[in-house]
Amino acid sequence: MNIAVLGTGSVGQTLSAKLVQLGHKVVMGTRKVGEAQSRTTKDGYGNPGIGEWIKSNPAVKLATFAEAIAFGQLIINATMGGKSIAALKAGKSGDLAGKIIVDLANPLDFSKGMPPVLIPELCNTTSLGEEIQKAFPQSYVVKTLNTMWCGLMVNPSMVGGGDHHNFISGNNPEAKFEVRKLLSQFGWKDEKLLDLGDITSSRGTELILPIWLRVMSVKQNGAFNFKVVS
Amino acid sequence: MNIAVLGTGSVGQTLSAKLVQLGHKVVMGTRKVGEAQSRTTKDGYGNPGIGEWIKSNPAVKLATFAEAIAFGQLIINATMGGKSIAALKAGKSGDLAGKIIVDLANPLDFSKGMPPVLIPELCNTTSLGEEIQKAFPQSYVVKTLNTMWCGLMVNPSMVGGGDHHNFISGNNPEAKFEVRKLLSQFGWKDEKLLDLGDITSSRGTELILPIWLRVMSVKQNGAFNFKVVS
Repeated sequence: MNIAVLGTGSVGQTLSAKLVQLGHKVVMGTRKVGEAQSRTTKDGYGNPGIGEWIKSNPAVKLATFAEAIAFGQLIINATMGGKSIAALKAGKSGDLAGKIIVDLANPLDFSKGMPPVLIPELCNTTSLGEEIQKAFPQSYVVKTLNTMWCGLMVNPSMVGGGDHHNFISGNNPEAKFEVRKLLSQFGWKDEKLLDLGDITSSRGTELILPIWLRVMSVKQNGAFNFKVVS
Repeated sequence: MNIAVLGTGSVGQTLSAKLVQLGHKVVMGTRKVGEAQSRTTKDGYGNPGIGEWIKSNPAVKLATFAEAIAFGQLIINATMGGKSIAALKAGKSGDLAGKIIVDLANPLDFSKGMPPVLIPELCNTTSLGEEIQKAFPQSYVVKTLNTMWCGLMVNPSMVGGGDHHNFISGNNPEAKFEVRKLLSQFGWKDEKLLDLGDITSSRGTELILPIWLRVMSVKQNGAFNFKVVS
């Protein structure tokens, strides 16, 4: 499939590399291609700058958000949550209609220091997932994978033999079924995918981030996930 | 130990019964004793009204918030989150000083319908746990058990053989150690207690409620808990 991955950070890089490995064609979207290509220094976690990464991943094409959106039959939103809607709006009118938007982003606000809080306008009484769905009513937003470190998104068996859960929220059953197929390619067993209902349930999964960050801080490691034990 | 349980709902009832069973002396605090005694109809989940419950649990004494706080060497806050600080303020000046407040409450706002959201003034950039600690700086607030159904709080082995986690937040290590001992009496294995750090980490655990409610809605059952799998 032709897939657009919006966002060039570690989530976008990890997803893109995995999708290419699975045989998909990937165009990675960014705001300004030239600027992204010049980003060669590592981030705070030691991940390569996108300018370096793209050179060693020649199968992934770097393009503008608009070009990536036009290319993708399916769109993966791996941008910073506060910038996601703007990134999606960069697409040409109609280019998102009828397409699935897999939303991995979280509306984190780093402006008040660490650990980040959630962007007040995008949490509790709403969510990023819902706001994207409202902004693009002709698209099918499926929120998933946003409750874990990107390494686990595409390699769930890395911890606990894969015995932990990934949540799914979205209004359209067919779109959720398509996303389940993609998740299966990533290694997710179907019984580990917990469908929470419509897109308003992404309020719940986005609000996991604060405890995720606290657990990460205690463990000094992001390779963990939540399991619903019943 | 003499323990005050503030709140007469299903959480307060469940905790009080277990504490009595463990040999503790329990005074349950409520706003107006006569009013509570007249509440005999079951709640929406089929739990008995406190007026009925107290008759079949004669070892538990029903008293005002102030009387319960004066009695307790340790205070358990099982009130509705939006009313917790007022309930604690009903205590006579100084009666909470030097005492541990085990805060099980969540600041849920049911005014906008179901599922509830969190009270905006008590979430994200702060938390109920933190606000209680600020309001009672001479007390030791320990937030715990607020991420699960009350049946599991006092009987963790009910699901998954107890292989799931309970989080602890609080500024004072000795207070957290005392609360761990109480949790051990409830059946919690020490390695299943995940200390997230100071009381600000209760932001994370209180924000779990929205996803907890969604999972409960899918499962049609509250007997589940989260496990951190790593």
